[in-house]
Amino acid sequence: MIRNPAEAVRPFFEPRGVAVVGASPNPRKGGHIVVANLKRFGYRGPIYPVNPSGEQILGLRTFASLALVPEPCDLAVLVVPQPAVFEVVEQAGRRGIGNLIIATGGFSDMGEEGRREERRVADRARALGIRLMGPNSIGTISPAAGVVTSITTLQPLRPGGVSFCGQTGVFGSGFAATIESGERFGIARIACLGNKSDLADVEFLEFFARDRATRVLGVYIEGVRDGRAWARALERVSRAKPVIVLKSGRTEEGARAVSSHTGTMAGADRVYDSVFRRAGVFRVDGFEPMFDLAKAFEFCPLPAGNRIGVISITGVGCVLASDRAGHYGLRVPDFSAPALEKMRAVVPPWAPLRNPADIWSAIEKVGGESAYSVVSSAAARDKNIDILGLIFVLIPESDFNIAQLAGELKRTKKPALATILGGAPDVVKKFTETLEANQVPVYPSVDRMLAAAGALASRTGFLRDRKHNPVR
Amino acid sequence: MIRNPAEAVRPFFEPRGVAVVGASPNPRKGGHIVVANLKRFGYRGPIYPVNPSGEQILGLRTFASLALVPEPCDLAVLVVPQPAVFEVVEQAGRRGIGNLIIATGGFSDMGEEGRREERRVADRARALGIRLMGPNSIGTISPAAGVVTSITTLQPLRPGGVSFCGQTGVFGSGFAATIESGERFGIARIACLGNKSDLADVEFLEFFARDRATRVLGVYIEGVRDGRAWARALERVSRAKPVIVLKSGRTEEGARAVSSHTGTMAGADRVYDSVFRRAGVFRVDGFEPMFDLAKAFEFCPLPAGNRIGVISITGVGCVLASDRAGHYGLRVPDFSAPALEKMRAVVPPWAPLRNPADIWSAIEKVGGESAYSVVSSAAARDKNIDILGLIFVLIPESDFNIAQLAGELKRTKKPALATILGGAPDVVKKFTETLEANQVPVYPSVDRMLAAAGALASRTGFLRDRKHNPVR
Repeated sequence: MIRNPAEAVRPFFEPRGVAVVGASPNPRKGGHIVVANLKRFGYRGPIYPVNPSGEQILGLRTFASLALVPEPCDLAVLVVPQPAVFEVVEQAGRRGIGNLIIATGGFSDMGEEGRREERRVADRARALGIRLMGPNSIGTISPAAGVVTSITTLQPLRPGGVSFCGQTGVFGSGFAATIESGERFGIARIACLGNKSDLADVEFLEFFARDRATRVLGVYIEGVRDGRAWARALERVSRAKPVIVLKSGRTEEGARAVSSHTGTMAGADRVYDSVFRRAGVFRVDGFEPMFDLAKAFEFCPLPAGNRIGVISITGVGCVLASDRAGHYGLRVPDFSAPALEKMRAVVPPWAPLRNPADIWSAIEKVGGESAYSVVSSAAARDKNIDILGLIFVLIPESDFNIAQLAGELKRTKKPALATILGGAPDVVKKFTETLEANQVPVYPSVDRMLAAAGALASRTGFLRDRKHNPVR
Repeated sequence: MIRNPAEAVRPFFEPRGVAVVGASPNPRKGGHIVVANLKRFGYRGPIYPVNPSGEQILGLRTFASLALVPEPCDLAVLVVPQPAVFEVVEQAGRRGIGNLIIATGGFSDMGEEGRREERRVADRARALGIRLMGPNSIGTISPAAGVVTSITTLQPLRPGGVSFCGQTGVFGSGFAATIESGERFGIARIACLGNKSDLADVEFLEFFARDRATRVLGVYIEGVRDGRAWARALERVSRAKPVIVLKSGRTEEGARAVSSHTGTMAGADRVYDSVFRRAGVFRVDGFEPMFDLAKAFEFCPLPAGNRIGVISITGVGCVLASDRAGHYGLRVPDFSAPALEKMRAVVPPWAPLRNPADIWSAIEKVGGESAYSVVSSAAARDKNIDILGLIFVLIPESDFNIAQLAGELKRTKKPALATILGGAPDVVKKFTETLEANQVPVYPSVDRMLAAAGALASRTGFLRDRKHNPVR
């Protein structure tokens, strides 16, 4: 049974019907939460709770055994005790259900005996033609399809273009709970691979390379088994869309922690580093920069180059931007003469005007809305500028109706990013939400904005180099 | 008129009476906002609005001229047009008011002509025995004294031990508006120096070295005039309390932006770097890490050493902590046998147990509250461990009454820091506020927690080295 690896993964994101084995009427149990999440996310296919007691669960008819579940059903989520998993795999085989997510832990994540049982389960599944996620996997989320197999209670997520993939369950639990309010970008797919006894990074990367819903991919990786296939798959994704990778187990101490966590080897970090460079993926040190970059790629068009025009209410924003731009591969060129002329409509003649532009004097003269609007639209039309970086300090006196400016920035073909250097909490909230609703990512520091802008420019350079040298 | 430089600064933080020259009945004007802020912050000394119109301002009697203001008055804030500043300095001299904050801009911040006027004002003030902050300075904040001279509307700040000092106004505007809800530490002093025509970094550093209210100091610096005196003053502060420095103008581009912003020279970055190393100050790249470290120093006792015990609900937290600890100067040693034995009361016998401790199996067995409490109190009593790092993922299922654990952590003599890797927003808010109310700083990433913990350990090392080699 050889299938296209990408197609092997699809039913895990877009199943035609989902069985939940170990479904429970007890709202605190994982087997209940999976059913409740599927209903809350609006999954449109049939949900089949499997529970020998026969009680209804959340108004759904239950089935005493996986073998009794009707059509269509191409995915089962197992939330049963560890010793029961093998038998459920047998039932799936008899029933002809080809895809299982094993949420149950206590396998290779818990020592040698668990490892042996995991191998026995995986071998049996392979013999039956069944593909597995896990064990110890909280599965997938596909908001547009209403699919969610997490055993932790989640609120519906906005569909969008950002996908995350990794063995850790944190994407499908804590981060999935935070993203809606904290990051405000939409999610295409989340895949928490767990112990990877069958389907692993390679198959998912191949899927993400082809997945039209995914516009940017964040990958967490501790270690891989088939390094060559994995590197090839990573390159394939990166050709199609930006990839941000957090690879842990860099140090000896980290590698030891990896080994105890999922039983994979971390491998030499330098090897990974060269793979990442070759593939043109963005390597980050933590989830915070991963989300920062994902947001920029999801919201912004790619720039033509690396020249940023910075517009700031405060001198310290100008200085920090000048200082740190080079570190992130950006240049801060002079504005062109026509742009400067347009800016002078609001900047008083006695005030210095260069890039970065300190527009405090313009704000005093014409107010924040007009000052930011005139100066940023001049920069957006400036042939010297590829990217806009707007810096705000949101004291009550600098508050204005941000919707108008945000709309203008959205219509600009150049990427626009923003930094908010503090302010009254309600004003900060309003600006952040309005800007991000208009595809302008907002960062709490100049450095984080520049890192994101630098990644956009770097992606442009990568694609250009590939175009000129396609065999790279 | 030679005064102790530290004492020269004190009236700017603790004036016995404040005149606001250019006070306005118009709520949108800076001269109104200063008066309103002083009233809102509960300043207990007299406030004297100075305005020739004679109208009452916020129920206060106004004075037609600074010369007419009664006793006590040892500080005047000038919010008058640039051409009027010189004359107000003359009036201050006649009236015997020795300390002025010149909020007005348009001096050396705005070209050669402004620079000449600034020099004329400063020379006249010196001749009259008057000390100046500014021009282009929004002055100071001392929450415990109810003092605030910012021309931007602020809500009262919680008194505490963190002080900030720098030429930028962003400390006394945007950040002052954000700190209460965003950082939750208390403020001792904020000083926004502006153009530094008279009082500058050296005088303020000397003050902060002696100021009992200040337990930790954040400094933003673009350039200094008297480098030697400044380095000596910095060393003096750092001997007494931790200092975190953001020095911009590192690169040529940044230096150019500095020069256009405040007219000071940035100087060779390597020279600064060696000054910082010698003084044992913490150099950071942005305001975000400055606040991260300030919070740790404000909340936490200093550790005995650099050995961190990490307790995490998720394997990925353990791996990231192991991986990155060394980068921040921390070690992750084994727990001692007695500590492991205590932890086994909640960690099932089949689950691996080491440092970092993945306590998911304990949480499943006894719940989050008991699992974190037993394991962290064992680590707190472990002679191998100097610092505690707790990692949470706040899915609804891992929620618990955090107040009890937070109280225990507060009573521990070892510093405890926390990371929240996402979760349901209301639970994240509750945990963050409760932990920080109990002096446990909370970070949104493992890296930022480790950076703060590493700074605590580094401070311990610095003080120990100084004790053994006091002439250093």
